[in-house]
Amino acid sequence: MKKIVTLISAVLLMVSLGYAQENTTEIKEDFKPSTLNQPGKEYPMVNSQGYARFCVEAPDAKAVSVSLGLGGRGGTVLQKAEDGSWMGTTAGPLDEGFHYYHLTVDGGVFNDPGTLNFYGSTRWESGIEIPAHDRDFYALKNVPHGKVQQVLFYSPSTDSVRRAFVYTPPCYEKEKNKKYPVLYLQHGWGEDETAWSTQGHANLIMDNLIAEGKIDPFIIVMTYGMTNEIKFGSGLRNFDIKPFQTVLVDELIPYIDANFNTLADKDHRAMAGLSMGGMETKMITLNRPEVFSHYALLSGGVYAPDDIKDKSQVNLIFLSCGSKERPDGIKQATATLKDAGFNAVGYVSENTAHEFLTWRRSLYQLAPLLFK
Amino acid sequence: MKKIVTLISAVLLMVSLGYAQENTTEIKEDFKPSTLNQPGKEYPMVNSQGYARFCVEAPDAKAVSVSLGLGGRGGTVLQKAEDGSWMGTTAGPLDEGFHYYHLTVDGGVFNDPGTLNFYGSTRWESGIEIPAHDRDFYALKNVPHGKVQQVLFYSPSTDSVRRAFVYTPPCYEKEKNKKYPVLYLQHGWGEDETAWSTQGHANLIMDNLIAEGKIDPFIIVMTYGMTNEIKFGSGLRNFDIKPFQTVLVDELIPYIDANFNTLADKDHRAMAGLSMGGMETKMITLNRPEVFSHYALLSGGVYAPDDIKDKSQVNLIFLSCGSKERPDGIKQATATLKDAGFNAVGYVSENTAHEFLTWRRSLYQLAPLLFK
Repeated sequence: MKKIVTLISAVLLMVSLGYAQENTTEIKEDFKPSTLNQPGKEYPMVNSQGYARFCVEAPDAKAVSVSLGLGGRGGTVLQKAEDGSWMGTTAGPLDEGFHYYHLTVDGGVFNDPGTLNFYGSTRWESGIEIPAHDRDFYALKNVPHGKVQQVLFYSPSTDSVRRAFVYTPPCYEKEKNKKYPVLYLQHGWGEDETAWSTQGHANLIMDNLIAEGKIDPFIIVMTYGMTNEIKFGSGLRNFDIKPFQTVLVDELIPYIDANFNTLADKDHRAMAGLSMGGMETKMITLNRPEVFSHYALLSGGVYAPDDIKDKSQVNLIFLSCGSKERPDGIKQATATLKDAGFNAVGYVSENTAHEFLTWRRSLYQLAPLLFK
Repeated sequence: MKKIVTLISAVLLMVSLGYAQENTTEIKEDFKPSTLNQPGKEYPMVNSQGYARFCVEAPDAKAVSVSLGLGGRGGTVLQKAEDGSWMGTTAGPLDEGFHYYHLTVDGGVFNDPGTLNFYGSTRWESGIEIPAHDRDFYALKNVPHGKVQQVLFYSPSTDSVRRAFVYTPPCYEKEKNKKYPVLYLQHGWGEDETAWSTQGHANLIMDNLIAEGKIDPFIIVMTYGMTNEIKFGSGLRNFDIKPFQTVLVDELIPYIDANFNTLADKDHRAMAGLSMGGMETKMITLNRPEVFSHYALLSGGVYAPDDIKDKSQVNLIFLSCGSKERPDGIKQATATLKDAGFNAVGYVSENTAHEFLTWRRSLYQLAPLLFK
């Protein structure tokens, strides 16, 4: 018992020291509106250290808090200011990149009226952007831009008209007879087909890579992967990939090949996904080895050599995650695949967790490796 | 004085009778989730009479209301239910079609977590849809679908990369050598380039018209029209059309003609806009008569014969509004234009106001008249 008390005291001491250190860090008063704010909105703001400051109007509320806090853990309780608005600053700097969040106002969950909304955790959430030191690779620049096309395709297996977004490179309209390889790129749990081209900036990453001559242009197709309504927790264990596999492989791919200038063969077809989309990528690439030749799991698990029956069928396996996830698992799996003779590449995004900066960077690393 | 008191009494009697009549109307308990709800969300609901019912979780709030009420006038105050949620039903049926709204929770303005968001009144607002009796013309059906393409184009005059959405018809990819006329279609005040293809369903209206053989396919281009930050009220009086006119005519049109298969001449170019977009359409078509041949103002004012210097330059003038706006103005202006020898068409949308069902119907009426 005494040992336990000592241990708890030590932990409390560490926590209180950590807290004291945080408090002595001077917060720089160079806050600017987050780049994801709605037009004309000042708050939320972000400073050069990565602290976020929130301001919410709700003069008669009893309590307002923000789900986002120090390093993504816990939230930030806002205090009522003299003018009746609720204000607060995170207790520490947030990781660079994109974060989902929401407000709790008197016990109800609402979005921050200051920011744009992004589909995550099966709802439209608020988003904030902590400018990353390497943000140039997904910046909107004056370079030739490809298009993001919304397509509606009929799916016989679900008897529904479904939506996909298709990135076509800048040269697509001009070189009408040229045909392109295709990457099928999936979102994570609770997200949808909008994720990769909004919070992911997949189109801008491609535009910039093409403008710099670092890749040969290809098409990206993004569709909704939660065909059979996966429930968080219990659901994934009993997850059946078949409904989505049918939509993707037997319905969407033929639609894309019929309606776009594609190189419609396995050698020029890749599949990648983040988080749950990685799980789907692994299942579908293994179930249907005749369809894709390049596989990529972004914070979405790993392949073992034994997973793949015929090594000669796979041109590339790309595995990645953030350094705050389980980078050792990625490194070990990549080494094991290489030892077994696979063309495997591992990538770890520094100082990021299970969030979109990890996946933007992963796409930036993956794109030059595809279709070689 | 006595007369005034009598008058007030009579008015009060009428109001109270009206209110009593409303209360005696039986509200049918056949409420269903609005078609614009977020995935899996039950509320808000709509019944077959057009009443809307709201339910908001905010257990510790003191007051929750909805900006949407009887016929769009006033709001709906929600009452706290036994389970701690806030519930309420509009005092009367709402007009058919799409309505923007928001919540007020303890004095703060938030969106309803149950619904999707739509950009209107310069912020992302909640939206609800009262099913219209004629909704078939903009329904998502199993017909060939065109694409809505996001394009990013550089604008030298504003030194910015700007966004437009381009609708291309279903046959566009398949008939690579065919060239198409183009309609430039503008949103209203406080909206943006997303409005016509989301709340407006412009792409579905076109897909259905083309599938039924009612129109020859054309391209629609939608971009952001509030180039110089129009402020509500005072701003419109001093509005300068030049900055937007330059972006549209001198930058976007050349981009579209260079990047899409267009019939790049005046005869095959139309401009239309709703509300403030109508005002912009009128100004730009009159300032630059060499650019467009078909003009359409949807709840956006009228042309007088004297506005147009050379009658032979205009192939069509289309004027429309909802019956709850100023239909007589549209009818009179159309008659006057016809008398003066113009090919003018007037359209009044029955039982709608300054809202999107008026404009969906207007586009449906306009499309078959274009490029004849």
